[in-house]
Amino acid sequence: MPESPPPVPEPRGRPASGGLENVVVGTTAISHVDGARGVLVYRGRDAVALAESGSFESVWHLLHHGELPDANEVERFRERVRAEATLTGPELAAIVQAALASAPPGMPAPLASVRSGLSALAGRRSLRPWLERPLDELRDEVLGLAAAAASVVVAASAALAGGQAPAPSSDSHAERYLHGLTGRPPAPSAVRALDRYFSLTADHGMNASTFVARVVTSTGADAGAAMVAALGALSGPLHGGAPGPVLHMLDEIGRPERARDWIARRLGDGHRIMGFGHRIYRTDDPRAMSLRRTAIESGLGRAELASAVEEAALEVLAEVKPGRPLRTNVEFWAAITLDGCGIPPDFFTATFTVSRVVGWAAHVVEQAADNRLIRPTVDYVVPLPDEARSA
Amino acid sequence: MPESPPPVPEPRGRPASGGLENVVVGTTAISHVDGARGVLVYRGRDAVALAESGSFESVWHLLHHGELPDANEVERFRERVRAEATLTGPELAAIVQAALASAPPGMPAPLASVRSGLSALAGRRSLRPWLERPLDELRDEVLGLAAAAASVVVAASAALAGGQAPAPSSDSHAERYLHGLTGRPPAPSAVRALDRYFSLTADHGMNASTFVARVVTSTGADAGAAMVAALGALSGPLHGGAPGPVLHMLDEIGRPERARDWIARRLGDGHRIMGFGHRIYRTDDPRAMSLRRTAIESGLGRAELASAVEEAALEVLAEVKPGRPLRTNVEFWAAITLDGCGIPPDFFTATFTVSRVVGWAAHVVEQAADNRLIRPTVDYVVPLPDEARSA
Repeated sequence: MPESPPPVPEPRGRPASGGLENVVVGTTAISHVDGARGVLVYRGRDAVALAESGSFESVWHLLHHGELPDANEVERFRERVRAEATLTGPELAAIVQAALASAPPGMPAPLASVRSGLSALAGRRSLRPWLERPLDELRDEVLGLAAAAASVVVAASAALAGGQAPAPSSDSHAERYLHGLTGRPPAPSAVRALDRYFSLTADHGMNASTFVARVVTSTGADAGAAMVAALGALSGPLHGGAPGPVLHMLDEIGRPERARDWIARRLGDGHRIMGFGHRIYRTDDPRAMSLRRTAIESGLGRAELASAVEEAALEVLAEVKPGRPLRTNVEFWAAITLDGCGIPPDFFTATFTVSRVVGWAAHVVEQAADNRLIRPTVDYVVPLPDEARSA
Repeated sequence: MPESPPPVPEPRGRPASGGLENVVVGTTAISHVDGARGVLVYRGRDAVALAESGSFESVWHLLHHGELPDANEVERFRERVRAEATLTGPELAAIVQAALASAPPGMPAPLASVRSGLSALAGRRSLRPWLERPLDELRDEVLGLAAAAASVVVAASAALAGGQAPAPSSDSHAERYLHGLTGRPPAPSAVRALDRYFSLTADHGMNASTFVARVVTSTGADAGAAMVAALGALSGPLHGGAPGPVLHMLDEIGRPERARDWIARRLGDGHRIMGFGHRIYRTDDPRAMSLRRTAIESGLGRAELASAVEEAALEVLAEVKPGRPLRTNVEFWAAITLDGCGIPPDFFTATFTVSRVVGWAAHVVEQAADNRLIRPTVDYVVPLPDEARSA
């Protein structure tokens, strides 16, 4: 649930000067967020239209190859992704389970497990710095790692539960992931909803994790290093979001007719309402709108309550904070979607990595194709030795 | 061997516009590189003077706490680092060995193993996003991880060799590391040289790995995520250096009197001479000069040949490329130092992480103390959907 406002205490101390907002760090042809118009673009095309008319694999092909696939190409790509994700299945499970061996119960956190599992898997594939090799090898490698990320999450989930990951072999990435994570064949409506979630969250401009992937790549490091680093950035609640609050809010509200009063009281007490407001979008977040449609069409659990809460929240926010563009963000409807698909909240951010890793993969290749080491400057705020002497 | 020129093929394609050079991303009070004067400053003090008069632990205390320790404080700090590094010894070895279990011989690369080991260790410590906790807990945590990094490298080295890591309990971080890595009690001159290397490479302004640590921290992610990500950046040859070339050059030259001809021939053939030139220093790299003094005083193997090669290279470079400030960089004398200490070239970059993690730790805390999410902007170079339609 990307780039939403902090769910926990406000940043400490005075506002920092850094942040690089509005600092242009380079160019990209992968994705673009038009925050004023509420449009997300993948490779020049409207991401919502792609998500709603195609499959995650077609979006993935577009982001990876730069071109939309035809029917034959999407089937071949689907097969390739399946092979990358499942060929490593048993080996992968062993790697992740070894990485988690003898962990105390409940530890480590799901995302730390995914990080260690992905790192171990990347290390086993013996990736070498891309600088030393043809770009096409890097392109193949990032696709393999991105496909395997879903299996790492499934293996981490199984290992944390003390069990063995199932290895379902469906052709659809969303179906395979959902089956693996929940341990049972998923309903077609859940697969469709998750497929759309994956499509809508695969890339989102130069967010913090994508930037980290590019900085790491700019040093010539291998693709595994870049992706593990990006995953670290995504694990931060200011970027990857915190799964609980939206669902807790719905639990507390309980019934649609209680929504308005509950929200007015929370705002009156000086709290934020989770799932509203975004750093970039000044109007509707198109991902939230698409997930909303999907959740309602698919009859996902709590979609109706969530709609009522959303409507009440937007009304109350418009009254209490007039002039501020506080619209529903993707975190709100992502929580409803993932919960409705049967994914445990502990694995919401890990599920986010399964789609965003596709964006990271494309950015790693784009960075490598036209590289310059990224190394900014800082102002030093302590007197230097001879300045100190003369003072 | 930080921030040296690329040892391998030039970046592909046209020069990229990005790179953030001269873009100020914030402020720091930790370290500063004065490239024009050839001075490196830690917390306002001359790093070379600190390295040559004190110990790595006193430099570490300064970077971590912001103040130089007195004799009692440095002893307490030394003890604290020792406890953090060795208390986890057996547990740590088990973690890293599990993470590497059943790896094919020679795989994964040392640095990928260290990355996976550090990730697993951090996950075991159940670090939670710092946003939710007092800053002092984060300060303790980064110290623990920074101290344990040396043990992770030793455990990774042992696991890759198929053995068990020894657990030497010396009070000196450099001695403990060297004993652990080489498997035998090190000579005092080697310990002193490594201690100085650690002191001189612990921080170096806003380099790529430090920047990555700060971006990841800015998302609210845990300290383990930040450090693992930074390690990924350091693993790139454009940042962490490539260990082989300097030593290969010395091997090929073989005798001091052959240096001048060999270098002139290489330059004439259009090759770079490894270990010369730096992106920031326009004059002597003070770290290289200090390591040179140390290597010669300590009588490290090859120091004499290296001096002759350096002298010849500087003469020939001044003739062939007049007006370009091509001085000896830290990579040159770091290779001589680490090789002279008995560290295998495969572990040069991993050894670099043992000191640089101290800088990352300080930057994680400084970023968290005054945070703002770091998220830059990029120019999108593809027409947007409605522009495409109207075109």
